[in-house]
Amino acid sequence: MLRGATSRRSRRLLVTAAAATAPIRGDYASLAPADLDFFREALGEANVVTEPSRLERYNVDWLGKWRGSSGVALLPASTVQVSAVLGYCNERRLAVVPQGGNTGLVGGSVPLFDEVVLSTSRMSAIRAFDAVGGVVTCEAGTILQALEEYANERGCVVPLDLGAKGSCTIGGNCATNAGGIRLLRYGSLHGSVLGIEAVLADGRVLDTLSSMRKDNTGFDLKQLLIGSEGALGVITAVSMQLPTAPSAQNVALLACASFDDVLGTLAAAKSHLSEILSAFEFLDADAMGVTLQHGHGLASPFEAPAPFYCLIETAGSSQEHDRDKLFAFLDAATEGELAADGVVAESAAQAAALWALRESTTEALTKVGHPVFKYDLSLPPSSFYAMVEDARARVCAALPDAAVVGFGHVGDGNLHLNVVLPGARRGEARAEEVEQLEALLEPWAYEYVMERGGSVSAEHGLGSMKAHLLEPVNGPVAAGLMRQVKDVFDPRGILNPGKMLG
Amino acid sequence: MLRGATSRRSRRLLVTAAAATAPIRGDYASLAPADLDFFREALGEANVVTEPSRLERYNVDWLGKWRGSSGVALLPASTVQVSAVLGYCNERRLAVVPQGGNTGLVGGSVPLFDEVVLSTSRMSAIRAFDAVGGVVTCEAGTILQALEEYANERGCVVPLDLGAKGSCTIGGNCATNAGGIRLLRYGSLHGSVLGIEAVLADGRVLDTLSSMRKDNTGFDLKQLLIGSEGALGVITAVSMQLPTAPSAQNVALLACASFDDVLGTLAAAKSHLSEILSAFEFLDADAMGVTLQHGHGLASPFEAPAPFYCLIETAGSSQEHDRDKLFAFLDAATEGELAADGVVAESAAQAAALWALRESTTEALTKVGHPVFKYDLSLPPSSFYAMVEDARARVCAALPDAAVVGFGHVGDGNLHLNVVLPGARRGEARAEEVEQLEALLEPWAYEYVMERGGSVSAEHGLGSMKAHLLEPVNGPVAAGLMRQVKDVFDPRGILNPGKMLG
Repeated sequence: MLRGATSRRSRRLLVTAAAATAPIRGDYASLAPADLDFFREALGEANVVTEPSRLERYNVDWLGKWRGSSGVALLPASTVQVSAVLGYCNERRLAVVPQGGNTGLVGGSVPLFDEVVLSTSRMSAIRAFDAVGGVVTCEAGTILQALEEYANERGCVVPLDLGAKGSCTIGGNCATNAGGIRLLRYGSLHGSVLGIEAVLADGRVLDTLSSMRKDNTGFDLKQLLIGSEGALGVITAVSMQLPTAPSAQNVALLACASFDDVLGTLAAAKSHLSEILSAFEFLDADAMGVTLQHGHGLASPFEAPAPFYCLIETAGSSQEHDRDKLFAFLDAATEGELAADGVVAESAAQAAALWALRESTTEALTKVGHPVFKYDLSLPPSSFYAMVEDARARVCAALPDAAVVGFGHVGDGNLHLNVVLPGARRGEARAEEVEQLEALLEPWAYEYVMERGGSVSAEHGLGSMKAHLLEPVNGPVAAGLMRQVKDVFDPRGILNPGKMLG
Repeated sequence: MLRGATSRRSRRLLVTAAAATAPIRGDYASLAPADLDFFREALGEANVVTEPSRLERYNVDWLGKWRGSSGVALLPASTVQVSAVLGYCNERRLAVVPQGGNTGLVGGSVPLFDEVVLSTSRMSAIRAFDAVGGVVTCEAGTILQALEEYANERGCVVPLDLGAKGSCTIGGNCATNAGGIRLLRYGSLHGSVLGIEAVLADGRVLDTLSSMRKDNTGFDLKQLLIGSEGALGVITAVSMQLPTAPSAQNVALLACASFDDVLGTLAAAKSHLSEILSAFEFLDADAMGVTLQHGHGLASPFEAPAPFYCLIETAGSSQEHDRDKLFAFLDAATEGELAADGVVAESAAQAAALWALRESTTEALTKVGHPVFKYDLSLPPSSFYAMVEDARARVCAALPDAAVVGFGHVGDGNLHLNVVLPGARRGEARAEEVEQLEALLEPWAYEYVMERGGSVSAEHGLGSMKAHLLEPVNGPVAAGLMRQVKDVFDPRGILNPGKMLG
């Protein structure tokens, strides 16, 4: 009679029992000449891309790791146009991949097969700005950096910032619940996004746009869309709370001798800097090494390499008060022997140079070899860096020159573990060793994280890369509900098939 | 071919077309002796309440405005027990009302008819606390104030605080997405809650508990439960991010001559106090008048009454820095003639006395007359106080002695408009005038808010009071999706029928 009140953890399947298998194309319709006629009429000739050379950028992700073979990319300019093409695709049962800046790291935004690509790149208008409340409403294709500049001109900041800001779009950020470096200060998009406009699979428009900070008038459907990776609807516009821009900002880089010292430095930063602490990032020596080797013109401010680096940012309203606090913290950190060395940026240019050390790592890794095995993990502090060490021991025993690097948002418990073989090219140089490396890392990495109560995807999402983990991670009850919710929003399953929901 | 990409606003029905009608009991089963036998076996004799005198508190809300006629209240002690009784009720098709502290203001937590009351009052254990990350996992029946004390002892605060903290439960707070006075600083529960454990209608347990701040591994189902008002599942446990406790706190009360000055003071506070501004509340002269008249031992710090009062709190890490900023702000506000007068608390006792002026208003109003018509609204700044003035003009033309008061979280755009007839008792004294008052206020108030792009429920939810507004407010697309989601989670419709989803 008592029903299963067991915990999620004990219900988890082993990942090995649900290992990634080659995806299978569903029985969707194939693109026909009449479809192109419809799209051209709806969007205009120039906004229906079919030439193979122009299609390449829509079919391949920026890491060059996932490749689809779509025959068409659509560039609608309005919600009405998105509605028209989705309604048509739904009736025809043509599968559709929504695409923002295509900067994702898990293969979520490119086709697996011949899905129609629906790009929001032409939808980048700012629809409204409420100066008193600091609320912006913008279209999904707005580039994050453009929105940041718009916000800055109005005394605000976007509560989200990440390395890909020059290319990623606000719609893609919401669809993947992007985290980034400001989460520590401003929280996640679940708190900052006030409303979403999305087109459902059948072309109906779900409009929850609002400039109200508080609204409790039914289930909060926009929250479901945040992080839904294009499986529930195509986000076409977003209203977002923009915090007031801090008038004082400071950046420091510290060198630490051990990861325990990194954690001690984090605790000291929380205590001393409290409400002005706006970022706490870390790199290990190997991450810094790769960054310095392959990042153009980057230099370390320290004479000798250190095992760990912490990048700390403060944001507040009084430069004098904030620097008082920052120097008191640095004194405490160095006197307590938590930090071996430290520098504070004396200008905006120096601050940018310190940030570049942290933000260039992802791109620098792509220059070492291909593919880069990337794990975006949440882990409790006790396991956080131990995992990098365990991965390094495991990998380097077999492949001694592999680069195993750890960096990320330690203030949020978010580790980026990256592994790459120097000089490798998948299917080309070192192909066998790449296979060997993959077998060493998966499913080991996922099981390692799940056994420790962490998350196998902190901020990148599941995409194609981790679609097979949905059930092991969430258990049958949650995974079952997700599939039923998908059926409600997209009963014919045309939106981003084969990704998050397998 | 182009499908409806019209905005939510233009799709809204008039509220008058969906006016509140008397609820109708669904064709649920009625409680039978065998049901009580089952409950007693599952929970123990003492935890199945059937005596009318003991049942009263479960059947009636604390405002005394809504009354059900349930024959049983169940007091489970564990998730396993909740699972057992829900699974049973689902098979029997007995309707169930989940109940936390029963402090809601919209009739959401008491039965409409003879629904089984499922109280979480015995589930108040703290299951875990992660000191490094500041994450607590506690059972749903934990009283908010008890959690705050637990957090304070560990150097943290709960990111939620509201007047009912001595009685309301964390499960009820999450089920209603409670807002309160700290939202300005720490954001909503959608950002602070890291995981929820809930029992679904059929007894299955949905476990999303987590101590990880970042987790993107599927649709974020916990977000749907936040604010679902008991319609999707019974929340049994919550994991929540607790911010580090501020080491310095200051409270000031300012007197303003006009509401424009209140808005000017808010803008100045945001600019001067920035990251240390933790609350910005307001009361109008009538709200202060009622509070001083009926709040035991409360006194205004000012010699003469003012048209408006702003209560401002700062929370930071340096008392000296914070007071510097607070006094600089107060100088600017008084020199700019935004504030006519101001006081700063010099002790914790004085700070508590200033807070009591704001937090006692709700209870003081209940002593004026009955019922108190309560509207919990989000409004844009330009309409915010105009609505109180318009309501006062409208009401007092017919009922000159009516008290029409405005107070609330002006920093979040959240107005509490309350109207009451002195000495009234529904069905007793001034019964006809109470009817007249209600007809003057509804649907006028809701249409007023909707025409201005506000929200008819900022933080209280829909409950029984506003269930008829679901469709007019959300439009048919969103309301239709909500009903389908409800069917996924609770296909037999046993959870809190007749409330949010009508």
